[in-house]
Amino acid sequence: MSAQTTPISQVHILPQTGGGVTVLRDQRVRVTCLQGKQVGDLFAFIPGSRGEYLSPSYTLRSLGRLYPEVGKPLYSTHRRPLLLIEEDTVGVHDLLMPACDNNLYELMGAKNHPSCRDNLNSTLKDFDVDVDGNPDPVNLFQNTPIVDLDGRWEVRESAAKPGDYIQFRALEELLVVVAACSMDLSDLNGGTPTDLMLEVFE
Amino acid sequence: MSAQTTPISQVHILPQTGGGVTVLRDQRVRVTCLQGKQVGDLFAFIPGSRGEYLSPSYTLRSLGRLYPEVGKPLYSTHRRPLLLIEEDTVGVHDLLMPACDNNLYELMGAKNHPSCRDNLNSTLKDFDVDVDGNPDPVNLFQNTPIVDLDGRWEVRESAAKPGDYIQFRALEELLVVVAACSMDLSDLNGGTPTDLMLEVFE
Repeated sequence: MSAQTTPISQVHILPQTGGGVTVLRDQRVRVTCLQGKQVGDLFAFIPGSRGEYLSPSYTLRSLGRLYPEVGKPLYSTHRRPLLLIEEDTVGVHDLLMPACDNNLYELMGAKNHPSCRDNLNSTLKDFDVDVDGNPDPVNLFQNTPIVDLDGRWEVRESAAKPGDYIQFRALEELLVVVAACSMDLSDLNGGTPTDLMLEVFE
Repeated sequence: MSAQTTPISQVHILPQTGGGVTVLRDQRVRVTCLQGKQVGDLFAFIPGSRGEYLSPSYTLRSLGRLYPEVGKPLYSTHRRPLLLIEEDTVGVHDLLMPACDNNLYELMGAKNHPSCRDNLNSTLKDFDVDVDGNPDPVNLFQNTPIVDLDGRWEVRESAAKPGDYIQFRALEELLVVVAACSMDLSDLNGGTPTDLMLEVFE
């Protein structure tokens, strides 16, 4: 797909906020890192289902690997492929870490800090969608690699450069939510959270 | 703790079934692999809370490592330590894989197969406990190591020998559920599912 194609919908996600789009089967969803180094917590939900949604644990189980890759899908809690990765200019993402939340920021000494969990929940409210439980995100552009076979991992600055993006083909009708990660107390987002673009294309 | 101590409660978990015990803070919970090579899917719930429960993703985030270890706790979805590992005669467990379920067995060509997900749900029903969502297990005695830094992992036979066990100190009042993993279509449980013992000690 060329970058000139006009999007059907476009949500500019400001720093430390979230947003969502509904996509039909076979439409494309693109998440672009506008200034670079910004993690996007990706969630996806099936209209009308409270219990089936995008799941990083089911994805890594189905992939046989802890990292997503081009040409392979992300899976749901029901082991169904939901989003096929068609293009990816970064190739560094995370399937392991839960979303940042109030509890994390309080442990780090920051009260009333914005978080991906709160931004997910307020976006779900905007779309009048209820889901069961505490979905874990697929952390786009997040650079928290395993550094040894004893399973230690590290927080590193996101590898995304300005304009880098990942693009999916929706394999089901979905509500796709992205939170521009609020973390400003580590190098995760390069120190300063920035914005993301969430777009849908035919 | 000596092996001679009399347990307060003892649940013999037959092959491909589940069982639960309630534990008070500071009591010990032990899971023993009776015949060896048997994975136990461990779940834990806080009485009265639908949304806070044992979580492998929050645990690996809090540990900074993908594997649990003696002297460190397992954490909840609210980032609270729930179960401290006090003794462990195996040292090979998993924090990554979701529970086996009907969807997995159907994908493998086996309809109406017992599963850890069904065994969790029926045990929760026995205890009249409702929880939100789809808790992932801590897979005791499960040998599915990462085999390279590209994040590939493999299914290997459990490293547990007959009589091997892991013992926790409960850091909160909990309902602890263990499912003796139903998988008989891979080497995970040594080919033939066997039983586990779940015990509580002062």
